[in-house]
Order: sequence, then C-alpha cells, then structure tokens
Amino acid sequence: MAIDPALFQENERTAPSADQRQFVEVGSLDCETGGHLPAVTVAYETWGVLSPAKDNAILVCHALSGDSHAIGWWERLIGPGKAIDTNQFFVIGTNALGGCQGTTGPDSIGPDGKFYRTRFPVITVGDMVEVQSRVIDILGIDRLHAVTGGSMGGMQALEWTVRKPGRVKKAFVTASCAAHNAMQIGFNEAARQAIMRDERWKEGEYEEGAGPDGGLAVARMIGHLSFLSEQAFDAKFGRRLQNKETPSYHLGVDFQVESYLSYQGEKFTKRFDANSLLYLTKAIDYYDLQSFKGADTDYLFASFTTDWLYPSHQSETLLKMAQDSDLKAEHRVIDLPYGHDGFLLDGDIQGGYVREFLS
Amino acid sequence: MAIDPALFQENERTAPSADQRQFVEVGSLDCETGGHLPAVTVAYETWGVLSPAKDNAILVCHALSGDSHAIGWWERLIGPGKAIDTNQFFVIGTNALGGCQGTTGPDSIGPDGKFYRTRFPVITVGDMVEVQSRVIDILGIDRLHAVTGGSMGGMQALEWTVRKPGRVKKAFVTASCAAHNAMQIGFNEAARQAIMRDERWKEGEYEEGAGPDGGLAVARMIGHLSFLSEQAFDAKFGRRLQNKETPSYHLGVDFQVESYLSYQGEKFTKRFDANSLLYLTKAIDYYDLQSFKGADTDYLFASFTTDWLYPSHQSETLLKMAQDSDLKAEHRVIDLPYGHDGFLLDGDIQGGYVREFLS
Repeated sequence: MAIDPALFQENERTAPSADQRQFVEVGSLDCETGGHLPAVTVAYETWGVLSPAKDNAILVCHALSGDSHAIGWWERLIGPGKAIDTNQFFVIGTNALGGCQGTTGPDSIGPDGKFYRTRFPVITVGDMVEVQSRVIDILGIDRLHAVTGGSMGGMQALEWTVRKPGRVKKAFVTASCAAHNAMQIGFNEAARQAIMRDERWKEGEYEEGAGPDGGLAVARMIGHLSFLSEQAFDAKFGRRLQNKETPSYHLGVDFQVESYLSYQGEKFTKRFDANSLLYLTKAIDYYDLQSFKGADTDYLFASFTTDWLYPSHQSETLLKMAQDSDLKAEHRVIDLPYGHDGFLLDGDIQGGYVREFLS
Repeated sequence: MAIDPALFQENERTAPSADQRQFVEVGSLDCETGGHLPAVTVAYETWGVLSPAKDNAILVCHALSGDSHAIGWWERLIGPGKAIDTNQFFVIGTNALGGCQGTTGPDSIGPDGKFYRTRFPVITVGDMVEVQSRVIDILGIDRLHAVTGGSMGGMQALEWTVRKPGRVKKAFVTASCAAHNAMQIGFNEAARQAIMRDERWKEGEYEEGAGPDGGLAVARMIGHLSFLSEQAFDAKFGRRLQNKETPSYHLGVDFQVESYLSYQGEKFTKRFDANSLLYLTKAIDYYDLQSFKGADTDYLFASFTTDWLYPSHQSETLLKMAQDSDLKAEHRVIDLPYGHDGFLLDGDIQGGYVREFLS
C-alpha cells in the first residue's frame, strides 16, 4: 500500500467552489421531525446532457463539507470519459438541505427577513432526499439511472432507494453506513461541542461575520483527524517540522501536522457556517436505516481497509441488508492507505467498479 | 473479545484523588530546552516498605491526566497481593513535572508570587525524569527494582533507562512508544487548539477560576475519543439514548455517548489545569527516543490489539530497539477490546506478565 503524497494535494477539502450553480425554489417543507420551512431553495449544478428518454440521470450527493460542485470534489470519478462519464450521463449535484452553499439552511434568511440560525428546524437525511426529489421532479426525471455518494452522501443515496421506490435504478454508496455507531456519533459530538462551547456561538444567534470561528476551526480539525489513517498521516507528515530544521520548543506550531490541521481549520471558517455543521452532523447521527424493504435498486457498496471512521464491516452490513431484501448488491473492499478520504482520493479502483456497475 | 461494561466504571479518569500525598523540595532545574525553574516541588506517595537493602523500590509514572495516586488509577495492578505487590515492593508514585496535582507546573506560584502560567518553561520527558530522580535520591534509593508506566508514563520509564543507566533494573512500559507519530501529535494538537482558541485562555494568563473551561472540556473529549476502540464505544453506548426512549431531535445531548463525553469533559475542568495539558502534551510530542544505547535494563513492553492511538507496532519497534542494544526484552500483545484504556483496565493479562517480569 504505497502512498502517493500528490494525491493529498487536492480533494474535497480544497475543491474549487461552484461557479455554475443554478437555484430552484421547491416550495415549503414539513420536516420529518416536526419543523416547518415555508420556502426551500436548492442550489444545483448539472453536467452532460439529459437524454430524450430522460433515463441517463445520475444524482451525486455530497458529504458533510461538500457542495453541489460534484465535478470538483469528486473530479477523480466524474467528468468526460471518467467512471461517471459526463459524455454519457446527465450528472446532477445539489447542495444538501441544511447546508450553506446555496440551499436553504440555518445561515439562510427566513420569511421574517432574519437569519434562521438555530430557529432552523432539526432536519433528517429523509428531509434532504425529499428536497432533492423535488429538484429531480422539476427536471422532469421520473427515474434516476443512479444515485451516488460517499459518507453523508452515501446515506442520502441509501435513503433515496427506500423512500422513493421505483425511482432509483442503481445506487453507489461508498465509505458510508446504515447508522452511525457510538464512535462516529462521538466524533461529531466533539465537533459540535467545540462550536457550542465557543462563547461567540451565542446559542447559535451570532451576527454575520462574528461566528464561532475558533470552535468551528477545532471542529474541522477533529474531522480531519478522523478522515485520515495512521499510515496516511505518517506518509504525509511523519515527525517533520514546519519550515525548520530543529524544534522551537514552544506551545505553538512546530510539526507539519500541526500546521496542516490549523490551516485546514482556519480555511474552513471562511467557507462554512458553524450552525450548518451542527445540523448536518445531527442529521447523520440520527440516521438509522433498518431495512431495504420496498426498495428495487441494485447496489454497489464500497469501503476502504484503512477507513476506521466508516469501517468496512458497516458496508458489509449494508450488503447483508440488501441481500435480506433479495436485492442485487455487491460490496467491494478497497485496500488503500488513505483512510476515510479514500472515497474522495481513489479514482482508479473505485472508478473501475463504478464504471462497470453503471454500464 | 467479550466486553465487561463494569470495567468501564472505574479507571484513571474516575480515580479517587490522592489523600496521602507528601511534598518534597528538589531544588532548581535547568530545563533541557533552555528554561530555568528556581525551585521545584514534587508531590509523591508511597506504599509498602522499603527494604533495608533499599532494593525493592518500584517507581510508577503516570499518564497525561494521572497523578501520584498510582494505587488509585492503577488499582488493578498495584496493591497487596497484586502484580505490583505492595507487600513485597516499595511503590512510589510522583506527580510529573508540569502537572497540576502538587508538583511544580504552570499552575504553580513562581518566585515573584504570581502564577507561572505560560511563563513556565517548555519541559521535556527528560526534565520529568530528572526531577523524579532527585526524589529517588532523597529517598536514599540508588537502584530501582523497576520503573513502570503506560502511555506518557511509559515514555518516562523509557527515558529513565537511558538517562540514568545503572539505576533501573527493570522497566515495564505499556501502551507507549519511542516517539509520537503524526496522528498522535495531531490529536494532541487538536486538544491544544481547543484550549488556545478559547477566548478565556488569554494567551495562558487566565485568572484563577476563570480558565478556558469550554476549550479544556473539548480537549478532554478529543482525548476520550482516542482512548477507546470502536468495539468499546459500541459495547458501552451503542446508539442508546440518554434517559429517554425516543430521540428529542434537537441540537443538544440525545445519545448516551454524547452525555458521556460532555460529562467527562466537564468533570475534567474541575481537576485539571488547561496550561498543564498544553505543557504535558508538548513534552510527549517532542519526545523522540532514538536508541537504548548505554542502558542496562530488562524491558517488558505491552500493547493492546485495539489501541489505535498507541498501536502495537510502536511497542514492536521498542522491542527491536532494545534487541539492537543487546538488552533483554519481551513484547506482549494483549488481545482486549478496550482500546488505549486497556493499559488501565486490564489487571489480569497484563498483571500476569508483570508479576512474572518483576519476580
């Protein structure tokens, strides 16, 4: 399992921001857990051409910090000639409900002209799918050729297949699971607490530009710690120092890994809303898919040997759940050293499986 | 690997505080990286009776959040009739330099009558050992029967054997390593950033009782996330809710694991100094033992299969390093599901090896 350091240079975390976004109003939403949104806007992007029969559409769902710009953060899988071939398929990326990249979320303006902040209702993965399905309706697509996604995106793909039976021919679900285990919830909770214990969080009612950046940066560091494997950390940083030959022996940054985490944390505060992170992590922590009953989708599950955050046995559970419902399914375990980030970094192995699966 | 949930009820994190502490002045210290402490006090405790030949002393070094009360946090290994048998051995526990449980640290009063805070010099594991060795001198002990410790305590034990050749007959080092890898440094850095980005940290110059409790609590949560294994989290919490049957669907605590982490975080702020955590984590991040050259100690290394923070291969590296110096050494890999906490929770298997090693 040799590591190519260049692979770490670009991934979801450094993807260019969306520049071709469209926005669509999808109406009001009664949320699954009781809240109500009087109006929902969805930001989306598309690549490729919808066939006259409208049977070549693939919906791509993003992970926690992603956005509608799937061709950016999943550039190794999506594009002309790639596994999700935009010469062949009409590919749709949407920003998830509760997000902060154009779709209605806690950082959006409510009907009273003020930011929602924590007046935003708690949302579920089911709510995200409901909102996405209205976009698909508006695009005139009855049945998707495939829904795909990794991590949180994988949960949305799973939910599509049980919530919208008959509308999803195939689902590619990578580095994901049917329900978070205690450790996954724990990592999310530490991230949430980092935000909520920041005095600038102010019970979520911070002013624009005065949010809990310190807590949000720490939350992002906690995330990055869980995205890589021990091997990936070693290959990428080892014990190398940041721009120096000998340690400074102070409390500040000395090691490269410290610099990397701080940089990632800082950068995240420039593009992400703290409350959005709370709502999205809660949605995936609450998610708990019990069965594929009623679904009529073919599944491709993928997992990565060094992904300790979403371990392979969770995808194996998904495979068994699909088989229990007599659905066609396969699970590919990919031996790469990149940890959870493997689902973003691996175009080759994953791509091969996806290409075959979609054909 | 069946898990006994009762084993989680008591460990280092919930140990009773020391009530038999003694304090000894050990003079001034020129720190390894250049700082100077005009006066150092060490808090220590002892159990058992020192033999007339003074050849039955065992020094126990604590981990990050421990203290001199070794018989508390390591009660499964230390006591009458236990593996480190206080009927046979004279057992010494000291609070480490830079700590906050009686030994001089950043929360101590400096010579000018003010708290050291971040005027405290950066210290090393070597400095901790230097200070401990003066206590051993004062107790009139020339050669220790053994030095023992897990995690940070293991690093101190390692350092004793190379820094004080001839003074350590045996060393038991569990769940530790010669040098932190990038991921271990990363977890410590996230904890440090949680503290240092708390506005109440005030560059370390907080008033008594007004420290960065929010950041310190998050730092502790990050620690606890790294102390357990996925299996341990599952067995202990699963997806069970805290005192309820159905989720509340809010941003606050709902799952037991969330409650546990918050409780551990809060509790920690009552007994630990935030700056102390910065100094101690920096000391172990900087630690980098290259060789056992010059040592004349017999080593017992132990590691745990599910400890992903201090993985077994790090102890295997220690074994090879000892063998390279023609020293007697063995490495026991213990198959238990408790993660890094195994070194605190396992009295039986570890205890059996330790008993045999010390005899």
